[in-house]
Amino acid sequence: MMNNDNWWRWGNPNEAQNLKDYPKLIDHFEELWSIKLKNNFKIPDKFEIPLPSFTLEDFKSIFPKLKEDQFSNSNEDRLKYSIARSYHDILKVFKNTIRSYPDFILFPKSEEDIKHILNTCNNNNIKLITYGGGSNVTGATDCDNSHEKIAMLNMTRMNAMSALDDESLTATFQAGIYGPELEKHLNGKGYTLGHFPQSFEFSTLGGWIATRSAGQESGLYGKIEDMVLRLKVLCPSGSLEHQDFPKHASGIDFHSLFIGSEGTLGIITSAKMKISKLPGSYNWTVALFKDFQHGSLAIKEMVQNGIHASITRLSDAEETKILSLMSHSEKSFAKTQIEKWVKARLIKKGYDRPCLLMMRFAIKQPSDKMQITDAKAICKKHNAKILPSNISSTWEKKRFSLPYLRDTMIEHRLLIDTFETVTYWSNLNDLYNGIRKALAERSDFFEKKGLLFCHISHAYETGASLYFSMIVPQEKNQELEQWKQYKTVVSDAISELGGAISHHHGVGKDHQQWYLQKLSLNAQKLLQTIKHELDPKNILNPGKLFDATKR
Amino acid sequence: MMNNDNWWRWGNPNEAQNLKDYPKLIDHFEELWSIKLKNNFKIPDKFEIPLPSFTLEDFKSIFPKLKEDQFSNSNEDRLKYSIARSYHDILKVFKNTIRSYPDFILFPKSEEDIKHILNTCNNNNIKLITYGGGSNVTGATDCDNSHEKIAMLNMTRMNAMSALDDESLTATFQAGIYGPELEKHLNGKGYTLGHFPQSFEFSTLGGWIATRSAGQESGLYGKIEDMVLRLKVLCPSGSLEHQDFPKHASGIDFHSLFIGSEGTLGIITSAKMKISKLPGSYNWTVALFKDFQHGSLAIKEMVQNGIHASITRLSDAEETKILSLMSHSEKSFAKTQIEKWVKARLIKKGYDRPCLLMMRFAIKQPSDKMQITDAKAICKKHNAKILPSNISSTWEKKRFSLPYLRDTMIEHRLLIDTFETVTYWSNLNDLYNGIRKALAERSDFFEKKGLLFCHISHAYETGASLYFSMIVPQEKNQELEQWKQYKTVVSDAISELGGAISHHHGVGKDHQQWYLQKLSLNAQKLLQTIKHELDPKNILNPGKLFDATKR
Repeated sequence: MMNNDNWWRWGNPNEAQNLKDYPKLIDHFEELWSIKLKNNFKIPDKFEIPLPSFTLEDFKSIFPKLKEDQFSNSNEDRLKYSIARSYHDILKVFKNTIRSYPDFILFPKSEEDIKHILNTCNNNNIKLITYGGGSNVTGATDCDNSHEKIAMLNMTRMNAMSALDDESLTATFQAGIYGPELEKHLNGKGYTLGHFPQSFEFSTLGGWIATRSAGQESGLYGKIEDMVLRLKVLCPSGSLEHQDFPKHASGIDFHSLFIGSEGTLGIITSAKMKISKLPGSYNWTVALFKDFQHGSLAIKEMVQNGIHASITRLSDAEETKILSLMSHSEKSFAKTQIEKWVKARLIKKGYDRPCLLMMRFAIKQPSDKMQITDAKAICKKHNAKILPSNISSTWEKKRFSLPYLRDTMIEHRLLIDTFETVTYWSNLNDLYNGIRKALAERSDFFEKKGLLFCHISHAYETGASLYFSMIVPQEKNQELEQWKQYKTVVSDAISELGGAISHHHGVGKDHQQWYLQKLSLNAQKLLQTIKHELDPKNILNPGKLFDATKR
Repeated sequence: MMNNDNWWRWGNPNEAQNLKDYPKLIDHFEELWSIKLKNNFKIPDKFEIPLPSFTLEDFKSIFPKLKEDQFSNSNEDRLKYSIARSYHDILKVFKNTIRSYPDFILFPKSEEDIKHILNTCNNNNIKLITYGGGSNVTGATDCDNSHEKIAMLNMTRMNAMSALDDESLTATFQAGIYGPELEKHLNGKGYTLGHFPQSFEFSTLGGWIATRSAGQESGLYGKIEDMVLRLKVLCPSGSLEHQDFPKHASGIDFHSLFIGSEGTLGIITSAKMKISKLPGSYNWTVALFKDFQHGSLAIKEMVQNGIHASITRLSDAEETKILSLMSHSEKSFAKTQIEKWVKARLIKKGYDRPCLLMMRFAIKQPSDKMQITDAKAICKKHNAKILPSNISSTWEKKRFSLPYLRDTMIEHRLLIDTFETVTYWSNLNDLYNGIRKALAERSDFFEKKGLLFCHISHAYETGASLYFSMIVPQEKNQELEQWKQYKTVVSDAISELGGAISHHHGVGKDHQQWYLQKLSLNAQKLLQTIKHELDPKNILNPGKLFDATKR
C-alpha cells in the first residue's frame, strides 16, 4: 500500500521540526558521541497489512443504526490506529514490526451510537479499544495479536460542551473533545479548565481521565482526578452515572473506579469538570540552584507552606545544559543568559552544575503577588540566584512542541524516550540517584555516553514527580532490544525504589508488569470482579491493566 | 438493671451543661413559645434488656485467641452500644424504645485480633458492627432488630501512631485513635492533621474515614478523603492494601471505595494520612452582612479566587441572633458587640437581619497576611461591615462543646436536631429557601414557632455546605413521630432540590432511603457485587447503605 510519509508523526505534520535547526545541540551530540548525525532513518515504503476481515457489508449488517461515514476499514486507517505515540510505537513503524492491526474503526456521534456499538460488539464478540487523540505513550491502545475482531472506537466526534455553570464554575463536556477546543469554549467566557499536558493539542478529555493525566499547571489546578465532578460511563452491562456534589458524605464514590481505568471498565462519554477563572496576569520567577537537591528542597518548602506556583519546573544539571543548547541562535536564551552568567560569576562559587527552576504564578488577587516575594525568599534561603524572568520564554514557547523534536531525533537514529514517576519527598533523592545508578550498573547506557536528564514538574505537599529523558545513539538493527533493555532497567529501578510506575502517562502495555507486581492478589481479584460485573464478556480493551480472564 | 444516669450523654459527663446558664436563651425561648421551660424529661429508671444470649463461655470457645478483657456482654455495655448520639438515638433512650441490643462487644488490640474475629464471625454467622467513638448521628451503628447475633467491634484500643515522615508530611495511625490523641502525637513535633469535626474529642480516625467526615478547618486542610494516602482494610475475604504515592497514574484506586463505606465493606485498621505544619499564628476576621445571600456571595468570591480561610462560618440572621443570645452574661459578646452595634448604627441602613461571618486564617508566610486584606476587601465589596475580631472568641471556645447544650435542651423537652447538605453555588439560595418553604408547607414546624437556623461552614470553589439546626418544643408522647415528620420533610426537600443527603454526617440508617433514591439500579448492582466479593456472607454492618441481600 502507499502511505503518506507523515502519518506516524506527532501532531500537525506542518509543524514537523528538523534537528538541523538546533545547531548547538547537534554539535554537542556529535562531539559527545563522535558521530556525524544523518537524517537517514526512514519508514518502510510499504506495510504488509492483512486484508480487512471485516467489510463494509459486515458493518452495514451488524451496525444498522450507524451511518457509512462512521466506519472505516481502509488500510490507511488500520495502519494509523495500530500505534499511538510512544518511542516503542514509532520504532515499530520504522522497523516494520507492527503485527496487529484493528479490523475496523468506528466513529460514534452520540451516546445512543455507543450503546448500539457496545450491544453489538458484546453480542458478536468484537473487542473494543477506546481511542481519543492517539497521543498515548504506554501502548494503552495496542491491538493484541489475536484472532478476535478488534474495533477502535474513535471518540473525537463527541466533542460538545453540554453545560456551563458560571456561578459554580463547572462545565460538562463530551469526552472526545480535544484540549484546544475545550479551552476555546471556556476562555471566551473568562474560564479555563487548567489542564495542559504536553499532549494538550492532540489529546482528549476522556483520554486524560482514563489515564489519570496531569497537566503542566497541576500546582494550581490539580491533576485531572481533582477536577472531575461527575462521569457518565457506558458499559456492556449498562450505563453508570451518579449524582454529583461539590463534596459529600453520601456513601461510596464508585465513579472514581473509572479514573485511570484505561478503557477496561467502561466508555467515559461525558464529564462534568471543575473549571476556574482565568487569572488576570502571570508572573514568571526563575532561579538557579547549586544542585538538584537544593532546588528540590526549595520546592518542598514552598508547597509545604502553601505557596503554589501554577507551573513549577526544576531541571537537573544535565537538563539545564540541554535547555541551554536548544536555543536556535547564538544571541538567545542560552548564550546571553544562563551560560554567560554561570561562566562569569558562579563557577568560582561552586555553581558549576547549575539547576534551573522556572515557576509561573497566576495572579488573581493582590496577595498572589506577595506569594512571589515569599517564593523568592525561600529560593534565596536555599542559595539560589534569581535570574531574569524572560529566561523562561523559550520553554514557554515550546511547552507543547517538544514531541516534534523527538520525531526528528528518531530520524537521526537517536533513541529518545521519556519515563516518569512520583514519590514522597523523603525518598526523592534516593529514587533520583537510584535510577541513574541502575542504568549504570545494569545496562550499557552510560558506556554508550547516553544522556539522562530529569526535571521535577509536579510538586505536592507530600512529594513530587520525576520526569526523565534519555537520549543515546540507536544500536543499528537492535533498536527495539536496546530500548527494551533500558526500559526494563529503569522500570525495575522505579519499582524497587518506591516510585510509582507512572505519575501521569498511565499503565498501558508497557508498564503492565510493574503495575501488576504491586497489586496484591486480593486487589486483583476485586478488580476482576468489578470488571466482570461491568464487562462480563471482556470486550473492553482486553488484556490491559489486569488479566480479566483469570477470574 | 441499674444505670449510671449519665451514660447516654455527649462526651465527658463532667462537662455536662445546663440551659439555666444561658438566661438570655431561656428568656427568648419562653417568650417565643409562651411556656415555662422545666428540666423534667428523664431517662427511664430501668431498661428491659433481654438476657445475654452470648456468654463468656461462648466467647472463650469460639474466640480462643482473644483475652477475657477483650469481651463484654454486660447489660450496661449492651445498653451503651445500642445507641450512638443522634437526637433520634437519645429520644429512644428517654422514651424507652430501644428494641435491639448488640449481643456482645469485642475490643481488638491488633490486626491479628481482627483477622481472628472476622474469621470466627464469618464461620459462625455473627454480624459485626465497627464502632469508633460512638458519636455518629445517622444511626450508622444501629443494631437491626434481628434474630442473628450481633457483635460490636470497639476499635479504640488500636490507637498507635506507627509512622511519621516529617520530610513528606505523612503519618500513619491505627484507625481507633481519638482526635485529641492523634493531634497530641503531631502537635508536639510541630504538625497537625487539621481535621476538627465538632465531634473531634469523641470520634476516631477510622470513623472519620468510614463516614467521609469534614472538619471545621476544611477550608485549609480539606475533607478527610483529601488527606488519606493509604488504607489498610481487613475484609472477611482477606486483607486489602495498596502501595501509596503522593499522586500517580498507575491504574485504578480501589481504596477510595472504603471512604464513606460505613463499615459495610471492610474494617479500616490503619491509615496513612497527609499532615501539615502547624501555622505560626492565626487571625480571626469577622464581618457582618446585610443578609445571607450577600455573605454567601462574598464567600464564593473568596474561594473562587484562591483565598482560603481555614475556618469559614457564615450564620444566617436566625443563627446570628441565637449566637448573640448564647452569651452567659450581659457584658459579653452579644450585648456589647453585635446587638448594640446593630441597634445603634445599622438598622436604619437596612441591616436589621444581620448575618455574621467568622473566618480564621492560618499564617505560615507573609503572603498569608495579605490574604486577609484581600478577604476584607471582598467582604466590603459585598456591603459588609468588618467587626472586632474578638467576637469570634465565644464560638471558638465552644467549637467542640455545643452537643452538651443539646443534651440539656432535650432534658427541657425541646426537640433539637441538626441536618446538613451541600450543593453547587448556583443552587445554594434555592436549596436554602426551599428547605424552609418545605417545612412551612408540609409540616407544623413554623406553626409551632419552631426555630430554624443555618450556617455555611464548608466552602469550595464549586459550592458550599448548609448546616441547619432546628429547635421547637417537643410534642409530648409524640416525640418520635414529631421528629420523624420534620426529618422526612427536610430530607425530601434536600433530595428534591439537588442537595446531597449529607455533606459530612454520613448515611447510616436515617438517610438510607434518600441515599438509595439517588443510586441507579446499575450502581446498586455494582456495589452489591463489590460487597459480595469482600464480604460474601454479609456479616459487616448488614443492611446499611445498600441491601446486599438483593444481589
